[in-house]
Amino acid sequence: MLIIGEKINGMFKKIRAAIASKDKGIIQEMAKKQIECGAEVLDVNVGPASTDPLSDMAWLVETIREVTDIPLAIDTTKPEVMDKGLSLAGTGSFLNSVHCEEEKMSSLFPIAKKHQSKVIALTMSKSGVPPNAEARMELSAQLVAKAMEYGIDTSDLYIDAVILPVNLPDIHAPAVLETIRQVKIISDPPPKTILGLSNVSQGTKERALIDRTFLVMAVYAGLDSAILNPLDKDLINAMITAEMILGKNIYCDSFLDAYFKGRSR
Amino acid sequence: MLIIGEKINGMFKKIRAAIASKDKGIIQEMAKKQIECGAEVLDVNVGPASTDPLSDMAWLVETIREVTDIPLAIDTTKPEVMDKGLSLAGTGSFLNSVHCEEEKMSSLFPIAKKHQSKVIALTMSKSGVPPNAEARMELSAQLVAKAMEYGIDTSDLYIDAVILPVNLPDIHAPAVLETIRQVKIISDPPPKTILGLSNVSQGTKERALIDRTFLVMAVYAGLDSAILNPLDKDLINAMITAEMILGKNIYCDSFLDAYFKGRSR
Repeated sequence: MLIIGEKINGMFKKIRAAIASKDKGIIQEMAKKQIECGAEVLDVNVGPASTDPLSDMAWLVETIREVTDIPLAIDTTKPEVMDKGLSLAGTGSFLNSVHCEEEKMSSLFPIAKKHQSKVIALTMSKSGVPPNAEARMELSAQLVAKAMEYGIDTSDLYIDAVILPVNLPDIHAPAVLETIRQVKIISDPPPKTILGLSNVSQGTKERALIDRTFLVMAVYAGLDSAILNPLDKDLINAMITAEMILGKNIYCDSFLDAYFKGRSR
Repeated sequence: MLIIGEKINGMFKKIRAAIASKDKGIIQEMAKKQIECGAEVLDVNVGPASTDPLSDMAWLVETIREVTDIPLAIDTTKPEVMDKGLSLAGTGSFLNSVHCEEEKMSSLFPIAKKHQSKVIALTMSKSGVPPNAEARMELSAQLVAKAMEYGIDTSDLYIDAVILPVNLPDIHAPAVLETIRQVKIISDPPPKTILGLSNVSQGTKERALIDRTFLVMAVYAGLDSAILNPLDKDLINAMITAEMILGKNIYCDSFLDAYFKGRSR
């Protein structure tokens, strides 16, 4: 499973301060630490407090590019910030994210096409996140069709079925897991699946336990990638173990360490 | 999910010694401890070292019955020991276990019927454990049909799709999980599903991590019950969290503690 590290985000205090003071060291250290812990892509988000998101995004991407060339996921709602971030991040990066709304799709898909980016697309419309798997699949189908219209390869589309926090009255997890299973048969080649994992535990106690338990179920459902905290060792070990049990990695006594040794980075 | 405590088993050194010296205290303490930790059924196995399994089983069941009246799972391959154990254990107990082999079914199903026991039935024939879900489903269907012939209520049948250790060359987990999903549509009412959980990690390092990761996937697949170590707090918390995420328990900040408070024992 592809791990996208979530830690370079201005909503985290330390990162927000580093962006404000243009402290490259903190950003670069966080980039390297996440890669060491298994991240193969780094999410980059200037955070809601940024007063100049365009230049903050440019600074963040350039700062990260001084220490690593792995793909970045440019995480913003603003088309001009997205365009800037992706142009600096280079090929193989991710547009994070587009909703299933006409105006968002028509402004963001062309930017993804221009930069040959992969696209993270949420099963979320103007009416919000639907309650069941059927409606999430309808939105997935619309996202796939629209991406094709804009000439984006379906296998570069990452559908996020949007898990909502478990402390809300409605139960979303079964619908999200079912969508992950079903998305695989929506087209050939199928789109990929992704989750913004930590949303499941937002506002709860036992966040780490809830995150890793849900991730294991999602891996079994066929999840291709997740935006998560790679510094959470228990979380990464749960993911490696789930993949090993399912036969995606081979068992050896040191299978947890072997997972990292078998990778190029 | 129904937790069957695995700890009263002569294969464990301390229990073997307690059986040999007829030390009631150790057995009774282990019974009570498992119940406190969430077990609603206790497995009872004299172990392979017993030289008089019939009287050892009788002693074990009578010893446990002095401190609790919860159902027991009489765990033996010997029909006469099974008959004795179930007669002392009383109604609602479990026959553990029958394979899908004519002579085993014809000797054990009548004993279950006589004592109105629930039956744990393994998808395992003379040729061993089949490699895929299809063959496990064939054996499940045979077990259901045979149980019906002997007048056993299908909802009292617990199908165990037999997980093999992850360090074997063949990958069994996806087939076991798929069988757990499919068994639910084999008959109406459907049989229940069960796992002898710790088998998945037999002979491996990281046993606890492997056990709880596989259990989370099995809970998502619809598992009704498992024979496991209830003293492993991380394992029980993983199970409670999986059920909470799937909406089987309601979330509250103290959902881990609430699980036990909401139960009758």
